Amino acid sequence: MASICILDEFDVHKNEEFLRIAEELKPELHETEIAPVSLLTLEHNGHPEPVVVSREDPDTLKDRKLKKDDTVILDFGTHHVGYVTLELTSAGSHQDAPAYLYLKFAERLDELTVNTSEYNGWISKGWIQEEHIHVDVLPARLELPRRYAFRYLEIKVLDVSLKFSVVIKNVSGKAVSAVDDRDVQFIETEDELLKQIDQVSARTLKNCMQLVFEDGPKRDRRMWLGDFRLQARADYKTFRNVSLVKRCLYLFGGLTFNEGKIPACLFLEPEVEPDDTYLFDYALLYGSVLLDYYRVTGDKKTLEDLYPVAIRQIEIGLTYLNEDGIIPDRSGEFWCFVDWGEGLNTQAASLAILIYSMRYGIRLAEYMNDEKTIRWLSNKMEELKRTAVEHFWDEKQQLFVSGKERQVSWATQVWMILARVFSKEKNRELILHTIEVNPRIRMVTPYMYHHYIDALIRSDEKERALDEMKRYWGEMIHDGADTFWEVYNPYNKYESPYGSVAVNSFCHAWSCTPTYFLRKFYIPGNR
Amino acid sequence: MASICILDEFDVHKNEEFLRIAEELKPELHETEIAPVSLLTLEHNGHPEPVVVSREDPDTLKDRKLKKDDTVILDFGTHHVGYVTLELTSAGSHQDAPAYLYLKFAERLDELTVNTSEYNGWISKGWIQEEHIHVDVLPARLELPRRYAFRYLEIKVLDVSLKFSVVIKNVSGKAVSAVDDRDVQFIETEDELLKQIDQVSARTLKNCMQLVFEDGPKRDRRMWLGDFRLQARADYKTFRNVSLVKRCLYLFGGLTFNEGKIPACLFLEPEVEPDDTYLFDYALLYGSVLLDYYRVTGDKKTLEDLYPVAIRQIEIGLTYLNEDGIIPDRSGEFWCFVDWGEGLNTQAASLAILIYSMRYGIRLAEYMNDEKTIRWLSNKMEELKRTAVEHFWDEKQQLFVSGKERQVSWATQVWMILARVFSKEKNRELILHTIEVNPRIRMVTPYMYHHYIDALIRSDEKERALDEMKRYWGEMIHDGADTFWEVYNPYNKYESPYGSVAVNSFCHAWSCTPTYFLRKFYIPGNR
Repeated sequence: MASICILDEFDVHKNEEFLRIAEELKPELHETEIAPVSLLTLEHNGHPEPVVVSREDPDTLKDRKLKKDDTVILDFGTHHVGYVTLELTSAGSHQDAPAYLYLKFAERLDELTVNTSEYNGWISKGWIQEEHIHVDVLPARLELPRRYAFRYLEIKVLDVSLKFSVVIKNVSGKAVSAVDDRDVQFIETEDELLKQIDQVSARTLKNCMQLVFEDGPKRDRRMWLGDFRLQARADYKTFRNVSLVKRCLYLFGGLTFNEGKIPACLFLEPEVEPDDTYLFDYALLYGSVLLDYYRVTGDKKTLEDLYPVAIRQIEIGLTYLNEDGIIPDRSGEFWCFVDWGEGLNTQAASLAILIYSMRYGIRLAEYMNDEKTIRWLSNKMEELKRTAVEHFWDEKQQLFVSGKERQVSWATQVWMILARVFSKEKNRELILHTIEVNPRIRMVTPYMYHHYIDALIRSDEKERALDEMKRYWGEMIHDGADTFWEVYNPYNKYESPYGSVAVNSFCHAWSCTPTYFLRKFYIPGNR
Repeated sequence: MASICILDEFDVHKNEEFLRIAEELKPELHETEIAPVSLLTLEHNGHPEPVVVSREDPDTLKDRKLKKDDTVILDFGTHHVGYVTLELTSAGSHQDAPAYLYLKFAERLDELTVNTSEYNGWISKGWIQEEHIHVDVLPARLELPRRYAFRYLEIKVLDVSLKFSVVIKNVSGKAVSAVDDRDVQFIETEDELLKQIDQVSARTLKNCMQLVFEDGPKRDRRMWLGDFRLQARADYKTFRNVSLVKRCLYLFGGLTFNEGKIPACLFLEPEVEPDDTYLFDYALLYGSVLLDYYRVTGDKKTLEDLYPVAIRQIEIGLTYLNEDGIIPDRSGEFWCFVDWGEGLNTQAASLAILIYSMRYGIRLAEYMNDEKTIRWLSNKMEELKRTAVEHFWDEKQQLFVSGKERQVSWATQVWMILARVFSKEKNRELILHTIEVNPRIRMVTPYMYHHYIDALIRSDEKERALDEMKRYWGEMIHDGADTFWEVYNPYNKYESPYGSVAVNSFCHAWSCTPTYFLRKFYIPGNR
């Protein structure tokens, strides 16, 4: 099912002062030289996951005379975001026809086995990182102008002529990021898996940190508010590039629309613009990003500038309450994200997220000494907590339900716990009961898993949280992750919300938070 | 069957002085603004030749919001060689994915119905004028860097997203040529078909006249000696760009190899180089180009510089004679071109062309007052004429035969006539007899037809020559030619020497000569 939002009414309000501040904070990207570390030979025999059957020195590449249908696969060692240059020449007789090449950049090896022409997902095939290139004159230095997110590069010769071959003399590249590996020290622990989880988290974060916190450098290459919130949390514990967080807070704050809504995502090119997508939960979570930022930096000016924007999101959120004091069910629309799970009902979670956001609103109001808002939000929050229990708590099941069908999902329980509808002890019972029941409507994104881990920790289940983290993110590492993936359902490793894993993002912002948890709750000596 | 030549030994001798002269004569290309004249809707129903079912004003293009799989076909009115710029923008929500476009430039409409992925010819698929382009940021001005030969441009949206469409705001272009339409006046005649033949000839010539006389601006985009010879003849009667002829004579003269052979074709990029292809007939015909040039210009310096190169080709040609005084049969190789006809035996024609080239050599020697060469060539030529009759004349059939199988072809008769092995009267009988017999091994290229027309005219069959010209080139016009084609077999309109018409050239140098014949022999008031 296509999940998009197109607003019929979309009246953008640009706060030029906020956008000016954001523009001034635009980072210079660090550039790092990269190069292939090996030439791979693969076998897949129809299985989606190819197997590497041999690795050769990439220096041998220049000795290969490539003819029609010859393919080489380069491995750059790990995941990078950046630019690639190919130095090509010919062998044999003089080049007497254009050399026609096909390039495919892949974050994961299995992307190479996808037949692009059969792609039939609902998001653009244009995201697949492939190029068809005619080289009219050899030798040629091909500086590919587009940025790619990749570990692997397949180069296939679609055609040359019977008289000459193509020779790839050299492949080089430069990786880009707003931050540098030297800005972070990895955690020290005896646990190898935790070390790896930390490193892969940091790499995921780094590769998403570009001119803004991108959600995925392969796709969608733009900033989504929900992802940004988690990235900022991970950043404070690792690279500490707080000015990029500030820039992004001002970008969202400076690009509201209609009655003052914050967009779910925004674009930088050709100029800074909001997307006409409103996600109820993302907009409400803006206050939580602002609060985190203020707590880390103490930057009062930013707090004062953006506080009204954050509170406005809660006011807008409250206007959606119906006569029963709950949010109507809009699960059929792309309106409240929560998770990518097929068939997930988000009605109860949307109320929980509203409540959650109000707690952050109260904290912000406290820092602003805004007594009126504190009183108003506190009263309303308590009222909503009662309504939440009245409408969604199923006493018999001892679980929250959602929607007309009274759906039981993991997501609903997690958000009700984070909303602190119950006491800490009761929350603990709820999360343990949820684990026991293991509802079929599961969590499929690291974004939702983040909130699950958070809920466990807040319910004094720190050890279990660590186990779950190791199980979920650790499993991605066992499956070969160089960076953490957008979607990972341990029950269906080829799950895609888009109709094909070819367009899944395998370096995805919202997946980088284990480093935040590890450094905040487990190994606090590391920043 | 693949027709290529790869020489194991290839020792290039560059005459730097000749190449310097050629470089100084490099033309500045004229640029002419071009634009689409209509938007086409096609129907083809499986037939290779699509039918235009509607034509719209190209200004309506900018009102179309193009989604996935939408296609537009632009008609630029006639055949051009040049560059195209697309101005693109988006409609709907903000662009949230790369726009992925497919472009196909076509000289003829039926190229658009060819499924490129099924192309399986023996020459490079890279010649098909197609591009896959990702546009990451809209609006965009897409100045396509490659040169195309086209009348039609198909633009297909491979993908956008569900939120936005692509809009093609404007399509513009510039055509390039070493000559200008204003340099030529078309013939004046009551005969509409002749007028058209003249105009299409001149357009074919003009579009092939670039930095050299190219054989085809779509494919191979380089200069072949056999084509150049005919182009120069047409040029003297139309654009009269004699300096381009001089440049090309010096290029061939300056790029010999091994024992002094002239290559069949040459390359300009990345630097001037000969192809390692020797075609016996093409090399021998160099002297005829030089003679024509000298007769038109009286440029003695060029004659003196290049005379030794021309005579050397005849000396080399003579070394191939075997003990019987004939050229051995090498029809299985790409060694003596003559024509593209499937199964054509070229043994007899190769001897005829050697004889023909000797007559031109004698004329050159006369202008050079080189008595020794005149005597040597005259004696040898008469000897070879006798050998030709002895070995290849079939008294019973009253036709020349070729090869061990004693093949009777049109090409053999034509070249024996042009070699003047017989008297003019006997040649006339032979050509009329050939027409009557209509050998099954036919002529398939305008290159061979040129020599057939020439043979008719030289045999005092001018009216018949005109009829044949109208029948052959006129038929291409009836079939929609804007420029004359590389291959045209009236008996098989989809003939291709390459395995697919997708790579046939539809604006081809060697097809431009009707304008030469018309102005030289029929309507001499026109230059």
